[in-house]
Amino acid sequence: MTNYWRDMSLIVQKYGGSSVATPEKIKKIAEKIKKNVEEEEKVCVVVSAMGKTTDELIALAKRISDSPKPRELDMLLSTGEQVTAALLSIALNDIGVPSVSFNAFQLEMVTTSDFNNARIIDINAERLLDEFQTNDVIVVAGFQGITDLKDITTLGRGGSDTSAVAIAAKLNTKCEIYSDVAGVFACDPKIIPSAKKHEYITYDELMELASMGAKVVHSRAVEIAKKFKVELYCASTFSDERGTFVVDSLPEWLEQPVVTGVTMDKNQRKFTISPLPGGQEAQVQLFIALASKKINLDMISTVKDNGQVYLTFTVVEGASERVREVVEEVLSQYGEYRLIEDDEVVKITAVGVGMESAPGVAARFFAALNKEGVKLLGTSTSEIKISTLVPKYDAEKAVRAVAREFSLA
Amino acid sequence: MTNYWRDMSLIVQKYGGSSVATPEKIKKIAEKIKKNVEEEEKVCVVVSAMGKTTDELIALAKRISDSPKPRELDMLLSTGEQVTAALLSIALNDIGVPSVSFNAFQLEMVTTSDFNNARIIDINAERLLDEFQTNDVIVVAGFQGITDLKDITTLGRGGSDTSAVAIAAKLNTKCEIYSDVAGVFACDPKIIPSAKKHEYITYDELMELASMGAKVVHSRAVEIAKKFKVELYCASTFSDERGTFVVDSLPEWLEQPVVTGVTMDKNQRKFTISPLPGGQEAQVQLFIALASKKINLDMISTVKDNGQVYLTFTVVEGASERVREVVEEVLSQYGEYRLIEDDEVVKITAVGVGMESAPGVAARFFAALNKEGVKLLGTSTSEIKISTLVPKYDAEKAVRAVAREFSLA
Repeated sequence: MTNYWRDMSLIVQKYGGSSVATPEKIKKIAEKIKKNVEEEEKVCVVVSAMGKTTDELIALAKRISDSPKPRELDMLLSTGEQVTAALLSIALNDIGVPSVSFNAFQLEMVTTSDFNNARIIDINAERLLDEFQTNDVIVVAGFQGITDLKDITTLGRGGSDTSAVAIAAKLNTKCEIYSDVAGVFACDPKIIPSAKKHEYITYDELMELASMGAKVVHSRAVEIAKKFKVELYCASTFSDERGTFVVDSLPEWLEQPVVTGVTMDKNQRKFTISPLPGGQEAQVQLFIALASKKINLDMISTVKDNGQVYLTFTVVEGASERVREVVEEVLSQYGEYRLIEDDEVVKITAVGVGMESAPGVAARFFAALNKEGVKLLGTSTSEIKISTLVPKYDAEKAVRAVAREFSLA
Repeated sequence: MTNYWRDMSLIVQKYGGSSVATPEKIKKIAEKIKKNVEEEEKVCVVVSAMGKTTDELIALAKRISDSPKPRELDMLLSTGEQVTAALLSIALNDIGVPSVSFNAFQLEMVTTSDFNNARIIDINAERLLDEFQTNDVIVVAGFQGITDLKDITTLGRGGSDTSAVAIAAKLNTKCEIYSDVAGVFACDPKIIPSAKKHEYITYDELMELASMGAKVVHSRAVEIAKKFKVELYCASTFSDERGTFVVDSLPEWLEQPVVTGVTMDKNQRKFTISPLPGGQEAQVQLFIALASKKINLDMISTVKDNGQVYLTFTVVEGASERVREVVEEVLSQYGEYRLIEDDEVVKITAVGVGMESAPGVAARFFAALNKEGVKLLGTSTSEIKISTLVPKYDAEKAVRAVAREFSLA
């Protein structure tokens, strides 16, 4: 690949669905991008579908079939982003900014063939860079890809973030993620209005926060950003308020907070098998069977009592029917068991790279919850996070307690 | 190309926008196609955008720009057909009919790069036929194509008809055009409810009728059908009423009607230049200049009187501003002139291959109009048609007079 693009000042920007919900908003974004161009930057803009378009397309498909064929569903859903890309390019050209729009086909955004949840394999950066010879802005339909066989795929919810970061990685440049959220907050401003906004946050922390329910950036996008050291900036589309830089490690002059954020994940369903028949062999068989059905277990804990094993795990809400089927299929051959399902649980997670070097964080976390009388229903930890399940009715109280303890607001 | 497809019973069907306007209608069409499959036919289905989708997308673009960039407009408009194709394929798979949907990219429907009005150059028939090895139905997004450079094009209004006939030509099979019109009528049933429906009509006649304002099939589609001798059948989507076969020549047993149909084209604007300065040279320069601006003149007539030339012509309604500019540009150098514009005219056309061998048709045509007191404002004829301009307020009366004269109702 030629290196001429290194002479360009080149950035990738991504605008989410609510930022492009109406023709008026699209025109405003075009004006915003024009300012970048006037500062002699070339901009690759990745867009989502307008407003609730993706949901509407899914609803349309569901009026026809309860289980639309995944390949055809992606054929359908990919149109949403293409509409936005074309409209934004029309808006840019209308105000004198030379621009062209591309879909995944045209840009050869090659993915795996996992319809509805594909992963990017490669992008034709040469095509992009060629187009910058004659255009100041290239608008790319996010969320979509194509397979080797030219089938259209989509990247899963939040996939436009992933498209944007992947392009930035390929172009070796930075990526700005614009949405209606003004950056990365230490906790949800809807629950705690005084929530602190980070000026900087590390990839690792944001990845944990994102996968734990914070909605700023898609976690897979952060994963790619980390892998290729793509500098991210998350900010509000229509305000000049300073956003958040996502970086490999915090600037040295910045005091390292112990806990960076606390999140709440309501999308959990807890299963308890009491007791588990067949012991460890059954448990292994069960985990293998669940994995083969692509069910991700989240918080797993086992307790041994009086020779019996009691197993608890959580899954994301939509998967619970498949879980029941797999459990029945695997365990019925081993003996009697009780399967208890509980959807009245919420996962509370505290994240912070500072945890590694600061002992006693877990103790402070649990003490803070305990002091407020919050019931703890299960726990899992990693180097930079502590998660616990709490009853749904205690969830907001729990977030407030953790935020207070670690000065997040 | 291998010849294995000749062993298949293969048809092409096209469903227009009103036939696929809702998920419920799409499901009905899937059931209809299933019957073809049960009769061991493979079906290639070409679909238009749902209902008024194309108009809505254009309106969306116009909210952003008065003159959207043509390439980007096609990027936008092509999504409409892709949505329908995906939904119909979802519906077919849902009722057990193996089906896959394709857009122009995937099928390599290569066109010229005349955005908004491209012409098909080639179609990858091998891909289509390969897919029939594993699918009973292939759903194709109509109206769209791609250029060599992978840009998306659209084929102009009525373009899905053209897609369908082109595919049928390529596969050497017949093409069924389904819409909310039950076939080809001798005159508009909205004006004359007892209008006769043809069982057979020739390509030539239908082409004249289509380009003269009849809405059954796009005239370019008929042109391709004629060229490749594709047998067309036009019928109603949701009724079993017998439609119209479009053929090269009428079956011998059928009595040849002298006049096959009468149409009304309201989309006309008449210009008169009186007198024309500069004589024949000016006239030639004017026609060259109009052609270079892609303005199609329709009915041209010149009258010489007392050494002066008086020129009259009509154009389609939208072009009149460009006409005034071109006339001013060309004629001002030759001298004084008056340009008179009249949009209160309608073109009435009688079409019939029988005219060639039946003298006196024109005489009967004009006598019928004259008897009703219809003013004749200009005339043009060809081997199989007679057109005349009449005042707008006389148009329906004129259609009725012609229909009565030639027993079209």
